[in-house]
Amino acid sequence: MSAEREASEIFEEFKELTPSEFFRRNKQMLGFSGKIRSLTIVFHELITNSIDAAEEAGILPEMVIDLKRIDKDHYILRHQDNGPGIPEPFITKVFCTMFAGSKFRNIQSRGQQGLGCSGCVLLSQMTTGQPVKIRSGYKEGNKIKGVEMTVKMDVKTNQGLILDRKEIELDSTGVSMELHFKDVSYSLSEQGAFEYIRRTMIANPHAKIVFKDPTGSRYIFDRATDEIPPMPKEVLPHPKGVTADDLIFMAKHTDKRRFRSMLTSSLSRMSNKRVDELEEITGIDFNKRPKDMKWEEAEKIVELFQSMDFMAPPTAGLIPIGQEQVEKGMIEILEPEYVKTITRKPKTYKGGVSFVIEAGLAYGGKSGRVVGEQKKAEIMRFANRVPLTFDQGSCGITEALKSIDWKRYGIRDLENAPITVFVNIVSTHVPYMSTGKQSVAPEAEIMQEVRQATMKIARSLQKYLNAKRAAKEEAMRAKVFETLVPVVLKEAAILAERDVPEYIEVMKKVTRNAGILGGATDDE
Amino acid sequence: MSAEREASEIFEEFKELTPSEFFRRNKQMLGFSGKIRSLTIVFHELITNSIDAAEEAGILPEMVIDLKRIDKDHYILRHQDNGPGIPEPFITKVFCTMFAGSKFRNIQSRGQQGLGCSGCVLLSQMTTGQPVKIRSGYKEGNKIKGVEMTVKMDVKTNQGLILDRKEIELDSTGVSMELHFKDVSYSLSEQGAFEYIRRTMIANPHAKIVFKDPTGSRYIFDRATDEIPPMPKEVLPHPKGVTADDLIFMAKHTDKRRFRSMLTSSLSRMSNKRVDELEEITGIDFNKRPKDMKWEEAEKIVELFQSMDFMAPPTAGLIPIGQEQVEKGMIEILEPEYVKTITRKPKTYKGGVSFVIEAGLAYGGKSGRVVGEQKKAEIMRFANRVPLTFDQGSCGITEALKSIDWKRYGIRDLENAPITVFVNIVSTHVPYMSTGKQSVAPEAEIMQEVRQATMKIARSLQKYLNAKRAAKEEAMRAKVFETLVPVVLKEAAILAERDVPEYIEVMKKVTRNAGILGGATDDE
Repeated sequence: MSAEREASEIFEEFKELTPSEFFRRNKQMLGFSGKIRSLTIVFHELITNSIDAAEEAGILPEMVIDLKRIDKDHYILRHQDNGPGIPEPFITKVFCTMFAGSKFRNIQSRGQQGLGCSGCVLLSQMTTGQPVKIRSGYKEGNKIKGVEMTVKMDVKTNQGLILDRKEIELDSTGVSMELHFKDVSYSLSEQGAFEYIRRTMIANPHAKIVFKDPTGSRYIFDRATDEIPPMPKEVLPHPKGVTADDLIFMAKHTDKRRFRSMLTSSLSRMSNKRVDELEEITGIDFNKRPKDMKWEEAEKIVELFQSMDFMAPPTAGLIPIGQEQVEKGMIEILEPEYVKTITRKPKTYKGGVSFVIEAGLAYGGKSGRVVGEQKKAEIMRFANRVPLTFDQGSCGITEALKSIDWKRYGIRDLENAPITVFVNIVSTHVPYMSTGKQSVAPEAEIMQEVRQATMKIARSLQKYLNAKRAAKEEAMRAKVFETLVPVVLKEAAILAERDVPEYIEVMKKVTRNAGILGGATDDE
Repeated sequence: MSAEREASEIFEEFKELTPSEFFRRNKQMLGFSGKIRSLTIVFHELITNSIDAAEEAGILPEMVIDLKRIDKDHYILRHQDNGPGIPEPFITKVFCTMFAGSKFRNIQSRGQQGLGCSGCVLLSQMTTGQPVKIRSGYKEGNKIKGVEMTVKMDVKTNQGLILDRKEIELDSTGVSMELHFKDVSYSLSEQGAFEYIRRTMIANPHAKIVFKDPTGSRYIFDRATDEIPPMPKEVLPHPKGVTADDLIFMAKHTDKRRFRSMLTSSLSRMSNKRVDELEEITGIDFNKRPKDMKWEEAEKIVELFQSMDFMAPPTAGLIPIGQEQVEKGMIEILEPEYVKTITRKPKTYKGGVSFVIEAGLAYGGKSGRVVGEQKKAEIMRFANRVPLTFDQGSCGITEALKSIDWKRYGIRDLENAPITVFVNIVSTHVPYMSTGKQSVAPEAEIMQEVRQATMKIARSLQKYLNAKRAAKEEAMRAKVFETLVPVVLKEAAILAERDVPEYIEVMKKVTRNAGILGGATDDE
């Protein structure tokens, strides 16, 4: 053990990293691994940001995306939206500071983590060294202010550096940006950028995307509806959903002067009467300052929350796509033989985080995915209308679907059925498994709802498949009847040495398909 | 569109989060999702930290872990190691600051991300509100300094708060800590904490762990060898492994005054002669200050690196477990009928990050996992000797193993074979897919090496299985011969009306197994 080193020596190399430095070393944690996936993640981040921004401002989302290939794996991406724009002081924060964003509230939105835009800028910079060019048009009073900036991310400080800035005249609000990427690749595969746009359109029939691909082809994904989904409201956390840690955290950062008023103003379904009840049972003085609340007291209160009856959490915060809209989307894209969709009532997981499951089943047509010459089942997972493209294997939604006894619904083998299963989870807080936001944690209540929703519509599909099978058998029976009766009639007439009677009119009355009958008589 | 909101209004809610705040909202990104998994991740973080620290100091790692259950899902975990300890000024950083650590160098180590300890403290605090108690003994000159602290994490600032501190007398160096957890669960399942320790012992035969489980049972996992693995050396990045971004980053933070000297001192295999060559071909002035190097120039240099011949990266940075040690570990834990292991030569991925693949195959005995009454194949994945317990489905190692045509090696169906496949990837930079460090990105070169290594030993397994089958058939043939010959002899003797001749000695000469023969004659 001559090599023994002392702690002081080892800790000479101790460092602290900024979030940007951290992700620069670990870009795969942002989902950037592999050329195809990296580009799809970029599309994902920019498209979700644009749709969120437009909806928040009450605007029908519209994007123009232009992907130009200028060398083997060197692309320029231009992304333009019609959202409310970003006020100048926030531009470098949005694009160059990780863990910064306007989406950290208790509200349903596509983005959630304050990593999206800045992650794309980091990737761009790491692979090409190019700064990002940004144009932002935003309202200030009655005027539209326009600004154009060229910025870089300083990873050492997690801040933006402005290289160039000028004011410009713009007619409308919105953000457009130009980013260079290398070491990425555009693909038409299931995990590629094009399929990502296609799936986005299924779940967002109110959006419009014009996409120019690297070959120069221009695709217009037009909107199927002009209705902007109602804006989800920020909802206060439900008592059954908070932990002692949450209460202590709230107490530390509230501007209320008494614990009592903090409770009624920070939690939903929390009336003064309820607080009185709590106070009586726990014996805690609720008039003390929030900061004086102890952990044990918070724990006692939370425990009591679990045993008290509260109204279910307000669901104003949850805006599902809706049964009809999902159906429209699936018909538009899959042209199926049969489709059935469902939007379930809100449920909660972890005691108080509400969520809604929507499911759809499409059979036949372009449903399923084509592998070689076979049709395989296709699972389309969404979270708050955002397609989840990767990590299917480790996703709670997939797990739930696979746990269904599909044989009971007339599907012998899910893997090899020509069906598309659509599942969308709507929640103010989707429990993602990784920073890449590509899979949902297997929370028991969520899995149960996915199963319930899917089994419900699977029952309808089964009825359809049974009816189809019955109709097919009926048609076969009819066909047998219609081809045999004329023969029997003719043979009988010959045996009886009489003319063949006029039977066509009679047959038409007892069979349903005159066409088949006509065909059959032609064969005489 | 009456609900239209302006940008300024939307951006009122713009926030910046600290890393601790971010992970407090997204603890599943640290792997904390589900009760069993959360506890396993805690064991993982603490055990890898302890082994790393001991090895870095040249000490044989030893841990005493005590998990006490004090209420349904409320546990107290005491974890004590014999490492070099943590100097007092770094204690709050290690336990309470995320993205801080001593492991950000280009060196092979189990931990890599500066999230481990602080992540556990965050989980403890979020579920119980309890501070963490820490004792650290570390050398200062010739004396051992001892300190005991009670600390909390202030998530708003990503810093530690010291609640209590006193100096204590200690005989030896090391760290011990006491953490409370709720909402976790101890399990004996494949993904539970116990199995995690067991697998750790397979890949770390030089470590010792004494574990007291919640039922009070005490397990001593003793070391199988007294050799400390040689300490991996920090290696300079290889020219083929750096990107233009890396060069620019180095140039920004170097203390060298010329680009030339920065290159020779920051990269491996980079001689003055090489730099002259580069200078001549690129026409760039290498005597300029590093900060004056432009992106285009860096790109030109990196491009040139790709076409130049360099010696392979130094592999002093890579310390595999070793073929023999893996075999020892597998025999110790699995008691297999047959085992074969391999440690391959270093390879590189992404052009210059070196890695080594080790693989092992065990057949029979306790190999495979028992599911109901069936034996299924078991895949044990490791990265730098650390068991990867979760996200098996999305891991490049699993993908590579599944892509092998096992039928060619006498295994009809990998899923249902009674085998254990062991794979360890050794690298200074394992490309993890998620913050939970549970799966390896599917880099082509890594997948190829996993396939090659496994197929190589699968060939040996196939030979063993063939020989076993042949031996079985041979034994059956012998058995037939040995049971029939006496009968024929006796019957022939009766027909010939003569005495049965003494055949046993003769038979012993022509058959190999006198025992079987003896048995056969006893049955006359």
